[in-house]
Amino acid sequence: MSKLFFEDLSVGQIFGSGHYELTAQSIIDFASQWDPQHFHTDEAAAQDSFFNGLAASGWQTGAITMRLLTQSSFQPINGIIGSGLESLKWHRPVRPGDVLTLRIEILEMRLMKSRPGWGLVRIQVDTLDAAGELVQTFTSQVVVQGRDALAAT
Amino acid sequence: MSKLFFEDLSVGQIFGSGHYELTAQSIIDFASQWDPQHFHTDEAAAQDSFFNGLAASGWQTGAITMRLLTQSSFQPINGIIGSGLESLKWHRPVRPGDVLTLRIEILEMRLMKSRPGWGLVRIQVDTLDAAGELVQTFTSQVVVQGRDALAAT
Repeated sequence: MSKLFFEDLSVGQIFGSGHYELTAQSIIDFASQWDPQHFHTDEAAAQDSFFNGLAASGWQTGAITMRLLTQSSFQPINGIIGSGLESLKWHRPVRPGDVLTLRIEILEMRLMKSRPGWGLVRIQVDTLDAAGELVQTFTSQVVVQGRDALAAT
Repeated sequence: MSKLFFEDLSVGQIFGSGHYELTAQSIIDFASQWDPQHFHTDEAAAQDSFFNGLAASGWQTGAITMRLLTQSSFQPINGIIGSGLESLKWHRPVRPGDVLTLRIEILEMRLMKSRPGWGLVRIQVDTLDAAGELVQTFTSQVVVQGRDALAAT
């Protein structure tokens, strides 16, 4: 996978990723450590919960999205480094058997004043199920090194 | 810990949590699975990175925050269930040895039209270090069951 400098990117570019399949065990393992609530950790108890069945922690959907991002075709030379997330939305519960993939689009780009030769790139990160329906969406601003910044190191 | 119905909550209420201490190993373990980038997984390589040293994945800070939330004094009767996050910001890199805790404040409350007897509660979730400085902030809208909703079940 070729690494990308700021100059290699442009608004409207779209990137894809591999896939990640959730199992009941992976949902329970993640939630036991990070989100120990019965609808994420206990298949039987989850039946009578808000979710009417076992559902992944939203933070696991986020973590899976990050993992898929690191393996996607969006590969800034300095890695994927963001300072936050805007409007993260979980559109539906993620269940055992769901297979997730990403669609990444560049929304906006500008050079940084505080860090010469670097740019800020706003990306839309959509997490989709096998049917192509949205399960999670957010936008994030990431920092991307320009060619001149590298030369100056 | 007593469980809270919608009627037990009010705007301006503040809740606290326990603490979570990060180690280099916990940072590496999380990132190896969910955010495998060298500045999160390799102490030596991280020295020459954007972060100038090992830094936790932002998604780990989020997962720790969720874990602390589930153990906090903010205990809705139906669990902590949100449909998204607004304006999540990572204020600084989280490092080995950082000890994190939460401050949770209720910003806004309203009854749901689509789910009679339930309410939507907007919370501000601040993740603080041992010095009380912000390391992560976001707001989130969670659904909370009212006493009438329970009676109707």
